[in-house]
Amino acid sequence: MIILGVDPGTRFSGYSILKREKSSIYLITCDFLRLSSQKPLPERVFEFCENFEHIINKYEVTDISLETPFLGKNAQNFLKLGYLRGILYFLAQKHKLKILEFTPREVKLAITGFGGASKDQVSGMVHKMFPRLPIFKRDDVTDAVAISLCAAWQIKNLAASYEG
Amino acid sequence: MIILGVDPGTRFSGYSILKREKSSIYLITCDFLRLSSQKPLPERVFEFCENFEHIINKYEVTDISLETPFLGKNAQNFLKLGYLRGILYFLAQKHKLKILEFTPREVKLAITGFGGASKDQVSGMVHKMFPRLPIFKRDDVTDAVAISLCAAWQIKNLAASYEG
Repeated sequence: MIILGVDPGTRFSGYSILKREKSSIYLITCDFLRLSSQKPLPERVFEFCENFEHIINKYEVTDISLETPFLGKNAQNFLKLGYLRGILYFLAQKHKLKILEFTPREVKLAITGFGGASKDQVSGMVHKMFPRLPIFKRDDVTDAVAISLCAAWQIKNLAASYEG
Repeated sequence: MIILGVDPGTRFSGYSILKREKSSIYLITCDFLRLSSQKPLPERVFEFCENFEHIINKYEVTDISLETPFLGKNAQNFLKLGYLRGILYFLAQKHKLKILEFTPREVKLAITGFGGASKDQVSGMVHKMFPRLPIFKRDDVTDAVAISLCAAWQIKNLAASYEG
């Protein structure tokens, strides 16, 4: 099971690749994709697709893990998030990957044991689990790791051993 | 200029192909794509993409015309509309097509002369312009024709002659 966790955004998209093998979980890589705000949206959507298709092929991804979005104050941002999620759905179908979705509360609960945890608490816990993980300036990356961890854990609760 | 007008939906997507040549506008075809509600969303998003890529190639589309969506009562439907729009943005960039967008008010105003027109009034006007157009059971098709007409008209107001 090779899980791609994504926290998509039209500027920054965090992602993480986790491998689950027997009772172990390995964090293969994590990073973020930056899309220029100078570029028109169709170009960014296309770049997002190309980039994640490359990642899916490179790491032989089997599952995509996502957080269910909620409508915030800005309906346009919510719609744009839809553009990127649509691309991930398209790629999942094209490459026969499973899509797993978790609510923000489920992700926080799985990682920190508390559904109302802050972004910092999630990030802190992710760093505790993977001590060799570099500090990213953006939460998107640790969020993506947390989202992919949820998918790795969801089949059964493993007494997992971690390898950064 | 060959315009693809789309009124996307996860069940029914109306579309229309208009050709603008000098001062004439020709309605090449219009129809709708039906996606089974039994199928999971990634499969429908993929089918939507395949179908519209086929249409873009078949009719040598140069422009895609869309209506700007508004957030209705159902935020989940709004998000799903984002999935399909994301695919159209992706296809536009992939095939180097221009995207033109109009608000619902602009579409109604262009077609009926009244920005607050009903769906029936828009449909009635479209049928007046293209008398040989068959009656579709769904408004999505005449909506798509109206959306593509907006794009055909937007460069300058043509004294257009119509050919159904």
